[in-house]
Amino acid sequence: MIQKLIENIKRTGAPVVAGLDPMLGYIPEQITKKAFEEKGETLEGAAEAVWQFNKAIVDEIWDLIPAVKPQIAMYEQFGLPGLEAFKRTVDYCKAKGLVVIGDVKRGDIGSTSLAYAAGHLGRVSVGSKSYCPFDEDFVTVNPYFGIDGVKPFLDVCREENRGIFLLVKTSNPSSGEFQDQLVNGKPLYELVGEKVAEWADTCMEGDYSNVGAVVGATYPEMGKVLRKVMPKCFILVPGYGAQGGKAEDLVHYFNEDGLGAIVNSSRGIIAAYKQEKYQKFGSEHFAQASRAAVEDMIADINGALGR
Amino acid sequence: MIQKLIENIKRTGAPVVAGLDPMLGYIPEQITKKAFEEKGETLEGAAEAVWQFNKAIVDEIWDLIPAVKPQIAMYEQFGLPGLEAFKRTVDYCKAKGLVVIGDVKRGDIGSTSLAYAAGHLGRVSVGSKSYCPFDEDFVTVNPYFGIDGVKPFLDVCREENRGIFLLVKTSNPSSGEFQDQLVNGKPLYELVGEKVAEWADTCMEGDYSNVGAVVGATYPEMGKVLRKVMPKCFILVPGYGAQGGKAEDLVHYFNEDGLGAIVNSSRGIIAAYKQEKYQKFGSEHFAQASRAAVEDMIADINGALGR
Repeated sequence: MIQKLIENIKRTGAPVVAGLDPMLGYIPEQITKKAFEEKGETLEGAAEAVWQFNKAIVDEIWDLIPAVKPQIAMYEQFGLPGLEAFKRTVDYCKAKGLVVIGDVKRGDIGSTSLAYAAGHLGRVSVGSKSYCPFDEDFVTVNPYFGIDGVKPFLDVCREENRGIFLLVKTSNPSSGEFQDQLVNGKPLYELVGEKVAEWADTCMEGDYSNVGAVVGATYPEMGKVLRKVMPKCFILVPGYGAQGGKAEDLVHYFNEDGLGAIVNSSRGIIAAYKQEKYQKFGSEHFAQASRAAVEDMIADINGALGR
Repeated sequence: MIQKLIENIKRTGAPVVAGLDPMLGYIPEQITKKAFEEKGETLEGAAEAVWQFNKAIVDEIWDLIPAVKPQIAMYEQFGLPGLEAFKRTVDYCKAKGLVVIGDVKRGDIGSTSLAYAAGHLGRVSVGSKSYCPFDEDFVTVNPYFGIDGVKPFLDVCREENRGIFLLVKTSNPSSGEFQDQLVNGKPLYELVGEKVAEWADTCMEGDYSNVGAVVGATYPEMGKVLRKVMPKCFILVPGYGAQGGKAEDLVHYFNEDGLGAIVNSSRGIIAAYKQEKYQKFGSEHFAQASRAAVEDMIADINGALGR
């Protein structure tokens, strides 16, 4: 699956991913109003608004980008209807040829991780039939349980040609509380990175592994170190834009082949129309504002990369 | 909410929780057959079998136990129909007066954790209305992000009188890979335990906190240390029975007041009829086998506690 992501990146010339993390507060009134008229001020109404918002944005930006990253929490908060909107979004984006990274951050002991891996990346058997319930291309995984919580995901990556991004250094301000603690003089995130590199070796597809890592844009010095620790891993980089990460900080997340990283922006893209810079579009043309924001983000990152 | 759990424990005399983690392989043929006849060999059929299995067991054991812990992965693997069975199970158990611990192990950066906290323990606003989508009493939370990933859960615990159990030392064989790493001469799980104790102080309800911890039964020496590190936290103890944890090992997970821990068994209860010890019940009477297993577990643990 990493090869499909690489192809999409080469085709679009854009090492970026759009985070589809729709909060109700981001969605223009014309959409929520219509959804609530149809389905009431209910979880179903909220889910409908989320779906219509996503669809409008994806229709406008799909040709510019290689991948999307829906954050499942933003759907799960609306219960079952919300998760239905998640699934609909996944399917719709895949049909457009986009690589879908389910930002689910699951992780548990072995037998439980097996169920998550099957449900999100693989297939489950029901009697004589089998199904791919959520069917994402990649998911994010929490490594806190160690190898036996990760192994079911590695197995499914190999069997079904899917991929994962393991959390190594997250973008939030307090990520250092545990992740930066020194273990034998080395920060924990580096130890996690070394393990990820080891696991990645078992899931190679071409020059890169189907096992990648999450390293926040907000910690560029750490990103530089981790790039070297995990040479065959793609780095999924959250934290660009709204969280404070800048393009020039991200240069060292890439390998010399110009590949190896993909930078996410969520709010900065999907709620672009709320920024002063894009306010000329108005809430009416929110999706075009998102397109302009994607174009600017691609130019910004490629500029920093000198291409 | 911890006070409701304590009341339930005192009423039943049972510091145990039944893990409702239904794999299809645990479910007797008469149930899957009927479910597949009604809904086909589909995700809906699997979810129906899961729900009927859960209901039969809960109907048989609810009066013996204070709480249940459905593992959401086992439902999520069957997609949306599976998650509907999860929600139905939560609601049904709550209506029986059981405390429901959603074993969801969510955790993310602040704004995302807020969505998980709202969706599972709190409420979300939709226009002028608000809803409690999953509405569990407690959930398990992954602390890898540090305080800003945990804070939204703490806030919701206070606002809605709910609770969380943070992962401190998990029960699986490879949990030590990261959790046991020494930080300034102290294992990481102990550092996490110290933080949990600090966070717990901000969510007190009576003598205990609504913030507890997960510490596996499979690491009793560590449990003994962590009991002292987190004196006001309830410890949720997975790993008893099928995973190898023994009652006599669990004595030190409790405080001197006889409270402070609640021991989970999943397979050992819900798939009891498959054990030699309970095979006299046959698959026909699987739920009675579960009842016998619960009675034996309570006697085993109370025996070790000398009561």
